[in-house]
Amino acid sequence: MVPRYARPQMTELWEPEAKYRIWFEIEAHATQKLGELGVVPQSAAKALWDWWETKPKIDVAAIDAIEAVTKHDVIAFLTWVAEQVGDEARFMHQGMTSSDVLDTTLAVQLDRASAILLADLDDLLDALRRRAEEHKYTATIGRSHGIHAEPVTFGLKLAQAYAEFDRCKTRLEAARKEIATCAISGAVGTFANIDPQVETYVAEQLGLTPEPISTQVIPRDRHAMYFSTLAVIAGSIERLAVEIRHLQRTEVLEAEEYFSPGQKGSSAMPHKRNPILTENLTGQARMIRAYALPALENVALWHERDISHSSVERFIGPDATITLDFALARLTGVIDKLLVYPERMQKNLDRMGGLVHSQRVLLALTQAGVSREDAYAIVQRNAMKVWESDGALSLLSLLKQDEQVRNALSEQQLEEKFDLDYHFRQVDTIFERVFG
Amino acid sequence: MVPRYARPQMTELWEPEAKYRIWFEIEAHATQKLGELGVVPQSAAKALWDWWETKPKIDVAAIDAIEAVTKHDVIAFLTWVAEQVGDEARFMHQGMTSSDVLDTTLAVQLDRASAILLADLDDLLDALRRRAEEHKYTATIGRSHGIHAEPVTFGLKLAQAYAEFDRCKTRLEAARKEIATCAISGAVGTFANIDPQVETYVAEQLGLTPEPISTQVIPRDRHAMYFSTLAVIAGSIERLAVEIRHLQRTEVLEAEEYFSPGQKGSSAMPHKRNPILTENLTGQARMIRAYALPALENVALWHERDISHSSVERFIGPDATITLDFALARLTGVIDKLLVYPERMQKNLDRMGGLVHSQRVLLALTQAGVSREDAYAIVQRNAMKVWESDGALSLLSLLKQDEQVRNALSEQQLEEKFDLDYHFRQVDTIFERVFG
Amino acid sequence: MVPRYARPQMTELWEPEAKYRIWFEIEAHATQKLGELGVVPQSAAKALWDWWETKPKIDVAAIDAIEAVTKHDVIAFLTWVAEQVGDEARFMHQGMTSSDVLDTTLAVQLDRASAILLADLDDLLDALRRRAEEHKYTATIGRSHGIHAEPVTFGLKLAQAYAEFDRCKTRLEAARKEIATCAISGAVGTFANIDPQVETYVAEQLGLTPEPISTQVIPRDRHAMYFSTLAVIAGSIERLAVEIRHLQRTEVLEAEEYFSPGQKGSSAMPHKRNPILTENLTGQARMIRAYALPALENVALWHERDISHSSVERFIGPDATITLDFALARLTGVIDKLLVYPERMQKNLDRMGGLVHSQRVLLALTQAGVSREDAYAIVQRNAMKVWESDGALSLLSLLKQDEQVRNALSEQQLEEKFDLDYHFRQVDTIFERVFG
Amino acid sequence: MVPRYARPQMTELWEPEAKYRIWFEIEAHATQKLGELGVVPQSAAKALWDWWETKPKIDVAAIDAIEAVTKHDVIAFLTWVAEQVGDEARFMHQGMTSSDVLDTTLAVQLDRASAILLADLDDLLDALRRRAEEHKYTATIGRSHGIHAEPVTFGLKLAQAYAEFDRCKTRLEAARKEIATCAISGAVGTFANIDPQVETYVAEQLGLTPEPISTQVIPRDRHAMYFSTLAVIAGSIERLAVEIRHLQRTEVLEAEEYFSPGQKGSSAMPHKRNPILTENLTGQARMIRAYALPALENVALWHERDISHSSVERFIGPDATITLDFALARLTGVIDKLLVYPERMQKNLDRMGGLVHSQRVLLALTQAGVSREDAYAIVQRNAMKVWESDGALSLLSLLKQDEQVRNALSEQQLEEKFDLDYHFRQVDTIFERVFG
Repeated sequence: MVPRYARPQMTELWEPEAKYRIWFEIEAHATQKLGELGVVPQSAAKALWDWWETKPKIDVAAIDAIEAVTKHDVIAFLTWVAEQVGDEARFMHQGMTSSDVLDTTLAVQLDRASAILLADLDDLLDALRRRAEEHKYTATIGRSHGIHAEPVTFGLKLAQAYAEFDRCKTRLEAARKEIATCAISGAVGTFANIDPQVETYVAEQLGLTPEPISTQVIPRDRHAMYFSTLAVIAGSIERLAVEIRHLQRTEVLEAEEYFSPGQKGSSAMPHKRNPILTENLTGQARMIRAYALPALENVALWHERDISHSSVERFIGPDATITLDFALARLTGVIDKLLVYPERMQKNLDRMGGLVHSQRVLLALTQAGVSREDAYAIVQRNAMKVWESDGALSLLSLLKQDEQVRNALSEQQLEEKFDLDYHFRQVDTIFERVFG
Repeated sequence: MVPRYARPQMTELWEPEAKYRIWFEIEAHATQKLGELGVVPQSAAKALWDWWETKPKIDVAAIDAIEAVTKHDVIAFLTWVAEQVGDEARFMHQGMTSSDVLDTTLAVQLDRASAILLADLDDLLDALRRRAEEHKYTATIGRSHGIHAEPVTFGLKLAQAYAEFDRCKTRLEAARKEIATCAISGAVGTFANIDPQVETYVAEQLGLTPEPISTQVIPRDRHAMYFSTLAVIAGSIERLAVEIRHLQRTEVLEAEEYFSPGQKGSSAMPHKRNPILTENLTGQARMIRAYALPALENVALWHERDISHSSVERFIGPDATITLDFALARLTGVIDKLLVYPERMQKNLDRMGGLVHSQRVLLALTQAGVSREDAYAIVQRNAMKVWESDGALSLLSLLKQDEQVRNALSEQQLEEKFDLDYHFRQVDTIFERVFG
Repeated sequence: MVPRYARPQMTELWEPEAKYRIWFEIEAHATQKLGELGVVPQSAAKALWDWWETKPKIDVAAIDAIEAVTKHDVIAFLTWVAEQVGDEARFMHQGMTSSDVLDTTLAVQLDRASAILLADLDDLLDALRRRAEEHKYTATIGRSHGIHAEPVTFGLKLAQAYAEFDRCKTRLEAARKEIATCAISGAVGTFANIDPQVETYVAEQLGLTPEPISTQVIPRDRHAMYFSTLAVIAGSIERLAVEIRHLQRTEVLEAEEYFSPGQKGSSAMPHKRNPILTENLTGQARMIRAYALPALENVALWHERDISHSSVERFIGPDATITLDFALARLTGVIDKLLVYPERMQKNLDRMGGLVHSQRVLLALTQAGVSREDAYAIVQRNAMKVWESDGALSLLSLLKQDEQVRNALSEQQLEEKFDLDYHFRQVDTIFERVFG
Repeated sequence: MVPRYARPQMTELWEPEAKYRIWFEIEAHATQKLGELGVVPQSAAKALWDWWETKPKIDVAAIDAIEAVTKHDVIAFLTWVAEQVGDEARFMHQGMTSSDVLDTTLAVQLDRASAILLADLDDLLDALRRRAEEHKYTATIGRSHGIHAEPVTFGLKLAQAYAEFDRCKTRLEAARKEIATCAISGAVGTFANIDPQVETYVAEQLGLTPEPISTQVIPRDRHAMYFSTLAVIAGSIERLAVEIRHLQRTEVLEAEEYFSPGQKGSSAMPHKRNPILTENLTGQARMIRAYALPALENVALWHERDISHSSVERFIGPDATITLDFALARLTGVIDKLLVYPERMQKNLDRMGGLVHSQRVLLALTQAGVSREDAYAIVQRNAMKVWESDGALSLLSLLKQDEQVRNALSEQQLEEKFDLDYHFRQVDTIFERVFG
C-alpha cells in the first residue's frame, strides 16, 4: 500500500483495530449460539457483549506483545480478550479453529471492500453517463491502429466505457458473492466439535452465506476469482486511461485532464500540461493486475490447508482493494472534469482531406455495378494521393475528376457520400442499448 | 499447443478449415439479411448458400497464397470465395469490416470450446461424486501444514473437490456468456453502412447475443475475463493434482495413480511408481494460468482498436482451451481409476499415538472447569511426549496417568474422546450440502 | 507455437528428429567414455557410431509406438535404438538416468537457440546503427507524457534503442552461459553408478560445462533466469514497437512501416496504412513475457525433482525461442525499411509556436538575476497563451512584448535562445558513448 | 510493504527522509560541478553544503504541503530547500530535469538495497555451508516424484542449495550493476542545457556509472532486469522452503523448523508443530515474483518517457526489496537452527525393503550378460512384490530366491549391491566442486 494512493475509508478496513473488531464479533456471535445450544453457559456470550458495549479500545500493542511469545495471532487475541473480560471468556472459541476466525474475517473485509468498490463504480458510471450524454453528437474521428478510420462521436467513446464498467460491476457483484462466505467448521472442516448451526448463525449475523464444505480453510479458488476480477477491472481502467493519454497528445489534443491553478507540469519546461493522472492510473492498473497472480498460486494449498496463502493475503488483501478504490475514484475525477475540445476534434476529422469517407464511396461503386476489386483499386488510387499530400488534396475533388468514378456515380451521388451526419444515424439506437 | 496435450475435438475447432467455415457462415448470414433488407440482391445469399451446399473443400493453401500478396487475411478469404462463387459474391461483406468477421468468429470458437470444457467438467464432477460416495466414510487423517491434524474421510476430500469444480462450472458458464457476443457494426462500430438488424440476425443464427456497443472490435475485457476464468479453473486442477501427488508419496501412500501393465517408472530404477499424470497436470496448470496475463494486457487497445491483441489470441485461443480440455480429461481419468488404500490411511491415522484426538481432550478439560490456558498446557505437555516418541507412546495412556487430567475427567470420559466415529457425525450433513 | 510466427531454423531445433539426434549423441559420447574407463566394452560405442555414420532416419512414429506402452520416452528411444544397432546397444545408458539425457538435451537446444537469437540481435543492432547514423542530425521533437518537450534527433532515438538491445545481448550471453550445462550424474546426482569423468567428457563434446551439483535434474533456477531474460528482451521489443506505432499515428506521421505494393490496410477503408507489424510485435512481446512466469514457478521442484517442469518446458522451450526469433527478425525488417519523414518531423517541431524553447528562456532569466520562481511564472504565463492558441501565437514574439522579460534580456539574447542546433551540440558525444 | 515482513535497515532506505537526502546530495553535487564549470556562482554549492553541514531535519510535511499546490514533487522539494538556504539556492537544478534527480535517486536506493541483499545472501550461504559440512555424510533417501529413489546425503541437499544461492548472488551482482547508473542529461537526454561533465561528476560522487544514453529517463529495461532477478531469487527461496516443508511432514519428519518455548502450533490442536516459517516464505516468494511483472510492463514507456512507471515503482521499489531482505534473513534463521533427525532419515531409508538399490542390481545383471530388457523385467518383478508388501519383504531376499538372478550373480555379488556407502563415494568430489 502506498499512502498517496490510498483513501481512508478503504484503508481503515484493513487496519489492525478493524480486523480485531471483526474477530471479536465472530467469537461473540459463535459463543452466543453455543450458549443457545447448551454447549457453553449463556452467561459467556453475555459477558462478552457486555464488555463490548463499553466500547473498549483494542490494545494492538498488547496483543502484539502476547503474539511475540505464542507466535500465534488468534491465540494472542483470545488471551488478551480473556484478560479484559475475565473468567467467562474461557468459553470462547469452543470447537473452533483459528482459520474459522481468520477466513471469515477476510470474507467480511472483502465483502465490505466490495461495497466500497461497487459504490466507486457507480460514481464512475454516473460520470461516464453524464459526459456521454453531453457529447452524444460531438463528432470526432474514430481510429484503428492509431490511424484515422471513420467518424464516431465522443459520446460513443464514453458510452463504450460505460458499458465496459457496467460489465465490471456485474463481475464484481459475482466475485463479491464468491468470497462472502462464512466457515465455522472446526480444525479440518468436519464440525467434529462444533454444531453446523453455529456457522449458520454467525453467517446470518455478518451478512454472509455458510461455506458448503470447508477444509480447515475457505477454499482459495474463491479468492483467486475475486482478485482476478479486480485485475480485469484494472484492465478496463487502463483502457480508458490510455484513451485519454492519447487524446491529450500534443498533435491530437482533443481532450485534456483538468489542469488546476498553481499546478506545474515540469520543473524544466513551463509550457507542459501532462496527462499525469491517467499515466498514474496506467501504472496502478499494472499493480492490480499483478496481484491476481499470487492469488491464483494460492489455490493449491496442501491437503486441508497450508499457510502459504496467508503472507500473500496480508499484501494483496489491502493493496489490491485500496489501490483499486483509489484508481476508480481518480478516474471518476478525471472523467468528471475532463476538458473536451470539440473544435479540435472537428479540425482533426477534417485534416485527411475526406479520406474518412472512402468506404462509403467504395460501397456506392460496388452497388453501381463496379466489381469489389475494381472499386477498391479506384478508391485506393485516389486515397493514396490525398494521403501523400498530407490532407492538402481533397478526396472528393479527386474522385470527381476520376473517369471511372464519373462513369458510375453522379456528382450529387458522390457528394452525398461525404456527409458526416450519415455516420451518426444509429447513435441513438446504440445509446438506447447501453443506457436503456 | 503441444500435440501430446491435445485432443482432436478441441483441436479441430482451431484449425484453419474450421475458422474459414465460420467466416463463411457469418458472411452468408449477413448477406442473407442484407438481401431481405433490400441492400443487396437476394440472389447473392442464394448463390453463396447454393455453393455451400455442395460441401466445398476449403483450400487453405490457395487462401494463404492470396494473403501473401494482400497481407490481409479477410480480404484474401473473400477473394477466394469470389473466385469460387462468381459474380454474386461481390455483395458479400457490404458495410462490414474485417473485425466483424474475426471477432464474431472468435466468439463462436470460444463458445464451442466452452461447450466442450463444460462437458469435461461434467465428466470430472461425475467421477468425483462417484468416488466421493464410495469413500464417504473411509477414515483418513486431515492435515494442515502437512502435519497431522484431525480425522476426515477420503470422501470429504473428494466432496471438497466436487464443490470446487462445481463453482468452476458456474464461473465458466458466466465467462462463456461474456464472450458469446456478435458484432456486425462496421468500421468503427457506428453501423454507418450496415443496419443493426443484420447483427441481430447473424447473432441469432449463431447462438450469440448482439454486442451492445462495439468499437471496431468486441471489447477485450470480455476475453480477459474469459481467460482469467480458465486460469482459476487451472488453479483448482493444480490443487487436486497436488493433493494426489502428496497422497502418493512413499511415506504416505494412501492413494496412487493407476499404473498400467507395461508402464515403466524410471529408466534407471525399476521399483518406481510415480504420480506422473498429476505432476504433468501441475505443469499444465502453470501454463493455463500464464495465458491469462496477455489476455489482461490486451484490454487496453488504442482508441477504436489496435491489432496487438491478434497475435496474442492466435496463441492463447487454441493453447489455453486445448490444454485445459486435455487437463480436465486427464484429471477425470486419474480420479476415475485412482487406487485408494484405506488400510494405509488407517495405519497413518494411528501412527501418532492418538495425538489427533488432542483437541477433544482440551475441550473436555475446559468444560470440566479447567481454564483454557491450563488445559492447553496440560494437553500440550503430554502431546509433546507422544510426538517425540514418534508414535510409540499413546496419548490416552499418558493422559490417564496425568494427575491434573484425572482430577477433571474420569477414565471413561477420557476414552470416549478417542472415538474416531465422533468426527464423522456431520459427514452426511456436509454431503447433503454439496450434492444436494 | 503459431506457424505464422515461426522461422524454420529455430523451429527445426525443437522437432522430434532434432531432439532424438541430441539424445543419441549424448548416449554415444557417454558410452564412448564408459568404454575408455573399462565399464563397458569399447565395442559398444563403436557399434553406436558406426550405425550413426550410416545417417539413419529417426523413425519418430516407431518410437512413439513404443512409448505408448512404456509411458516413458527415454526407455522407448533406447529400445528403438537397440532394435537398430543390435546387441551392443545394451551397454548404452549405463548408470545414467533419463534426466541426464533430457536435461542435457534441453541445454543443447537452448544453447543453439541462443546462438540464433544472438545472431538476430546482431542483425537488429546493425540495422539500428545504420539508420541511427543516417538520421544522426534529423531534428524531431522529443516528447514526455506524449506532450512536446524539447528537440532531439531521430538518430538519438535509434541510438537509445541500439544501447538497449546491446544490453539485451549482454544479458542473453549471460543467460546462455547459465543454461549451457551438462549433467550426467545418475538417478539422484550422486554419480553412484557413473564416473564424473563421463559428465566432463560429454560436456566437452557438446560445448557445455559440467553442472557442479545436480539432483536428478539440472536445477531450474537456471531456466527461470533464461526465460526471464527473454522476457526482458521482449519488453525492449515492445518499447521500440510502441515508439514506431506512435510515430505512425495519423496526426504525427513522422515515420511509417514500409507499405508493400499490393498490400491492403483494411477490407473496408481503402485509405488505411496501418503499423501492423509493430502492433503484431506488441502482442508477441506479451506472450514472451508470459512464458517467464511458469519458468519461475518451475524452480521449486520437490526434493531431488518432480516432473511438473516437463510439461511447461514442452510449451515454453519452443514457444518462447521461436516467437522471440521471429519477433527480432521482424523488428529488424521494420527498422531496416522504415520510412522516415524529416519534413513532417520539422513541421511538428514547429507547430507549438516555439514552446519547446521555454526552458532555455527560463534558465536565461534566472542567470540574469530573476528568481527561479518568478522566472517560471513569467515563462509559464506566456507559454500558456501560445498553448491555448494551438501554435498560432509565437512564444518569441510574446516574450519580446513582456516587460519583465525585456528588463532582463535583450532582444538578441532572447532570439539566441530559440536556436535549434543549440540542442544538438552533444549528439556526437552521445553517439561516441553508444557506438564507441 | 507489510510491517511484519520488514526489517528496519531496508525500510529506512525507502522512507521520505532518505529519499530527500539523496535528492539534496544530487542537487548539491551538480551545483558544485556547475560552479566549477562557471555556469553558476561557486558560492551556490557552498551555501548548499554549509546548510547541509548543520544536519538539518528534512520537514516532510512542509514539502508535502507545497506539493499539494504544485502537484510536482521535485519542484516542491526545491522550493522548500530554497526557503531554508536562501537566495543562493536559485542556482540549483540548472539545466536539469526532475527525472535526472528521481531516476538517479532510484539508482542509489536500489544500489544500497542490493548491498543489503548481497549481505543477506552471504549470511545464507554461510549457514548453508556450515550445515552442509555438518551433514556431509548424513544418509537420507533421495526422492524423485516424491517417491523414494536412491540414497543421497543431507549435506548434498544443502550443498545444492548453496550452489543455487551462489548463482543468485552472481545474478544479483550483475543486476545491481545494471541499475547503478546516473543520468543528469536534461529534459530529453540531449544535455542541451547541462554539460555531460556534471553527470560524470555526480556519478562518481555517488558510486554510480554514467548512463551512456538516456531519454528523459534512465531506460526501464534495466529495472525490468533487476526485478526479474529478484523474482528468480524468490524462486530459489521457495524451492528450499518447500524442501523443508516436505521434510517436516508428519510421515517424513526428517527435519523440523526450530520450535521455540511458548510457541503454539494451533489454537485448537495442542499437538501441532508446523513449518510456518517456510510456509510463510512460500507466500512471500509468490509476491516477489509478482512484482517482476509490472516492472516488465514498465519498459515500453512512450517516446522519451511517460510517467506510468512511477506509480509502479512506488510500490515495487520498497515492496520487492524489503520483502526479499526479510525472506532471506528468515530463511537463514531457518537453516541456522533447523532441527535435523538423522535417525529418522535412516529409518525412512530402510522402510522400502532395499528397493533403493534396485538400479545397482539392474546394472550388475546387464554387466553379467543379461539383456537390458530382461534385467529390467527381472528386477521390476521382484521390486513390485516388495512395493506391495509396504516394505515388509526385502528385495535382497527375494532376489536371492530368483532363479534368473542366481544364474547371473553370486550371493556375495548380490549383497555387495546393497551397500549404502557405495552411493557416497563421490560426495567429496561434489563438495569440492561446490565449495572449492
